[in-house]
Amino acid sequence: MAYDDDNIFAKILRGEAPCIKVYEDDKTFSFMDVMPQADGHTLVIPKAPAENLFDLEPEHYAALAQVTQKIAAAVKQAIGSPGVMIAQLNGAEAGQTVFHFHNHIIPRWSGLEMKLHAREMADMEKLEEQAQKIRAAL
Amino acid sequence: MAYDDDNIFAKILRGEAPCIKVYEDDKTFSFMDVMPQADGHTLVIPKAPAENLFDLEPEHYAALAQVTQKIAAAVKQAIGSPGVMIAQLNGAEAGQTVFHFHNHIIPRWSGLEMKLHAREMADMEKLEEQAQKIRAAL
Repeated sequence: MAYDDDNIFAKILRGEAPCIKVYEDDKTFSFMDVMPQADGHTLVIPKAPAENLFDLEPEHYAALAQVTQKIAAAVKQAIGSPGVMIAQLNGAEAGQTVFHFHNHIIPRWSGLEMKLHAREMADMEKLEEQAQKIRAAL
Repeated sequence: MAYDDDNIFAKILRGEAPCIKVYEDDKTFSFMDVMPQADGHTLVIPKAPAENLFDLEPEHYAALAQVTQKIAAAVKQAIGSPGVMIAQLNGAEAGQTVFHFHNHIIPRWSGLEMKLHAREMADMEKLEEQAQKIRAAL
C-alpha cells in the first residue's frame, strides 16, 4: 500500500487536524491518543511520511526510539503508572488503523485490562490535563 | 528493583542457558521466544544489563531499535505474516516477566488471537526451522 497523504496523522502534522501536542522536534512529533487504551496513552510519530516500520528510514527510527524513551519516562512520572507498554503495529492484520507509523506509549496498572475492544473518544479537557503533566515531566 | 544477574536472558547472554539464536552484534542479541505468542515470535535484547526502557542507555536503545527493524523485516519475510507487532513491556504491572529489557517481534494474521494467556513451550525443532528462515532473510 502506498502512503496516503490524507491519513489523520498526516493532517495533524500539517496542522489541518487538531491534536493535544506533547513534544516536537525536527524529525518527531508526539501527542495524546484521543481513543486512549489507558490514562496517559501517548503516541510518538515520525514527521517523515512512513506507513510502517518497514518504510521508515533507520536513522529516523533511531531518533524516534530515543524520543519515545524520553516521553515514556515522562508519561510514567506524570501519570504515576507502575508499568508502561510500548507497542507498534504494522499492517491491518496486526491491528494498525492509521497508516502512518506510530509508537504507542501505554501506562499499565496491575489487573487493569486494556480497553482494546471498547475504544471511545476521551474527554479533551482530561487529555489536556494529562498532556500538561507529561510536558512538565519532560 | 536492581538488575538481577541471574535472570534467564542474562544467563543466555553468558552462554549459561540455551537459546535458538537469530542474530548477534556488539550491542545486541536476538533469539526465538520459547513460549511464542505466534509462529516466528522473536526477541531482541541489549547486551547491556538493563532491566527496562528506563535504565537502557539511549545510544544502546537506538542501536537496538535499528536491529529490531532489520529483524522484524526478516521475520515478516521468513514467516510470511501480513502483520507484525513490536511490543516492549516495562514492569510486572505491564506484563514483564523477565527483567532484562526485550523487544518482542510478533507476527500477526487477521483474526488470529494472540496466545496471551495460554502460553506454553514451543517445539524446539519447529523454532529452529523458523530461526533458519529468519537468519536466511537477514
